[in-house]
Amino acid sequence: MQVKGVDYKTVWMEGSKVFLIEQNLLPYHFQVFESETYEQTCESIKSMLVRGAGAIGVAAAFAMSQAIQSAPKDDYKPYLEQARKQIEATRPTAQNLFVAVARVFDAAMKSPEEGIAEAHKIAEKDTADSYNIGKYGAEIIKNGYKIATHCNAGWLAFTDYGTALSPIYRAKEQGKEIFVYVDETRPRNQGAKLTAWELNNENIPHTIIPDNAGAYLMSLGKIDMIIVGADRIAANGDVANKIGTLEKAIAAKEYNIPFYVAAPSSTFDIRCENGKDIPIEYRTPDEVIFQEGIDENGKMHKIMVCSPGSDALNPAFDITPSQFITGIITEKGIIKPEIQAIYSLLKK
Amino acid sequence: MQVKGVDYKTVWMEGSKVFLIEQNLLPYHFQVFESETYEQTCESIKSMLVRGAGAIGVAAAFAMSQAIQSAPKDDYKPYLEQARKQIEATRPTAQNLFVAVARVFDAAMKSPEEGIAEAHKIAEKDTADSYNIGKYGAEIIKNGYKIATHCNAGWLAFTDYGTALSPIYRAKEQGKEIFVYVDETRPRNQGAKLTAWELNNENIPHTIIPDNAGAYLMSLGKIDMIIVGADRIAANGDVANKIGTLEKAIAAKEYNIPFYVAAPSSTFDIRCENGKDIPIEYRTPDEVIFQEGIDENGKMHKIMVCSPGSDALNPAFDITPSQFITGIITEKGIIKPEIQAIYSLLKK
Repeated sequence: MQVKGVDYKTVWMEGSKVFLIEQNLLPYHFQVFESETYEQTCESIKSMLVRGAGAIGVAAAFAMSQAIQSAPKDDYKPYLEQARKQIEATRPTAQNLFVAVARVFDAAMKSPEEGIAEAHKIAEKDTADSYNIGKYGAEIIKNGYKIATHCNAGWLAFTDYGTALSPIYRAKEQGKEIFVYVDETRPRNQGAKLTAWELNNENIPHTIIPDNAGAYLMSLGKIDMIIVGADRIAANGDVANKIGTLEKAIAAKEYNIPFYVAAPSSTFDIRCENGKDIPIEYRTPDEVIFQEGIDENGKMHKIMVCSPGSDALNPAFDITPSQFITGIITEKGIIKPEIQAIYSLLKK
Repeated sequence: MQVKGVDYKTVWMEGSKVFLIEQNLLPYHFQVFESETYEQTCESIKSMLVRGAGAIGVAAAFAMSQAIQSAPKDDYKPYLEQARKQIEATRPTAQNLFVAVARVFDAAMKSPEEGIAEAHKIAEKDTADSYNIGKYGAEIIKNGYKIATHCNAGWLAFTDYGTALSPIYRAKEQGKEIFVYVDETRPRNQGAKLTAWELNNENIPHTIIPDNAGAYLMSLGKIDMIIVGADRIAANGDVANKIGTLEKAIAAKEYNIPFYVAAPSSTFDIRCENGKDIPIEYRTPDEVIFQEGIDENGKMHKIMVCSPGSDALNPAFDITPSQFITGIITEKGIIKPEIQAIYSLLKK
């Protein structure tokens, strides 16, 4: 990934220091935070300085690694147990975080060296998975394609490459000409703020569109393909993703536009038989009622953009039934959103 | 219509004065502007102090009436010709404005009294049409219905009652319990700002939702009916309305939810054979890139809510093909969106 022409990762580790792109300052300011201790890394996860499924998991693994390095020899295990609890408390619903922390902790019980190595392995796997999603996804992107995407499933949500954007970055490297329609993705505007910022840095031609404009552009034949990320995928291929994904998928089917979901196989949760089993988080109405941004002098403001006194409803995700999904792009290949294909993939 | 418990109209005239609710201050401040001259009324239309198809037409008719009253006797016709040009130049694409101004001008050529009376007739017809849309529309609203609407097609866009909201106001008067889901309607947030403000004043239970949440709420069975307004309707029943209308209509069809368009018969433009003949206005990207609202101290700010340096595309309207529309609620009854029904209606 490129920021102002320089290679970066979203989160990385050198010795006992963890480096994180400060996502809560984006897209207005680019800054890297240097975390010296596991407590500081915990705070970074909690404050959403780092966000996105993959990136959170890796940051948590690195926090464990910092704890291993600062643990006193005579209090090694109790110290790590305490650190683990602290890290797990930062974002209690982030599945990746728990898996990553458990893996590093278990390795650290064998030796500190193995714990530290495990954290790096988790980061490398995250990068490799995203890269491979891009490799498979790029195969179905034709030269000249105009692709729409929703929310941010780019490298800011992982260590590098991302999921939905990874095939786009790879296709560009292959010399294909592509254009991206970026859904602004209300209420938090992750499309307009983060995806647009990534694409700008990667010099990929794009334009932001209001979420309302999706179906209209499809009806005009202006969109060749849609790729989105996923927060969780049920055993039957139903996909939980950012609110608004379902609307795009329904419209895409109406206009015969291929609709792809890109996600590493760790996103499948076969304990959920179908989409109805995936719990949907409702977030504070304030995310709808207020908006944040900068004025002409670069000063941040939080303003009310609704009629005072009216309430708002804020479901953060929706469920797209598998019938609306053309295929799921994973690090092991592209599969149909069907139970047999999903079980075969997970056995690979 | 009610504002803080007091009866109002969006625009009205007493003697030579025109009174207009200052819509550019809503929803944060309620204020009525008193226009003394036709030039001031022109300025009010131009600056969007008054907006909405019906309200603009009536304001323009009243501006002509003011011109009639201030015209020197020895220069009557040239003075009115000049005034007409000035009024027509305020919003060059507003069809209602041209029709209204022509009608008042023609009547004024017979006598000043007839001109003044014609302006009042236009206002009364606007109110009566909206009222009758409410009467017919309320017949299909059942007790307990949860209704979604897009943009603002309420009384602020007309002199009173509105179109999409008129059946809701009438149903409430009839004692029906209703709940309204208000699409925020990016990029200009007319739903979150104006529709929510109207519903608040009318004490109708409602919640603002991000445009992205529509299909998800439909999939959960939470929406019984959708009613929207229309900017123009083609001879075959295709409807041009605020961007995002098409997405809602497609999703409504998927979930078998009745999707109604409410509009006076003056909205039909049979010169357009179908939706493809209706030109779609693309507005400035700034409406997507920047947002306006108030901070915690009530101070207005215009902030950038996108990644700096990225462009945005801003189609203001879209076309909903008639196949997605259950019916059109007019002041003469509810019709199917079909050419025969439309021709019959216009002959009534």
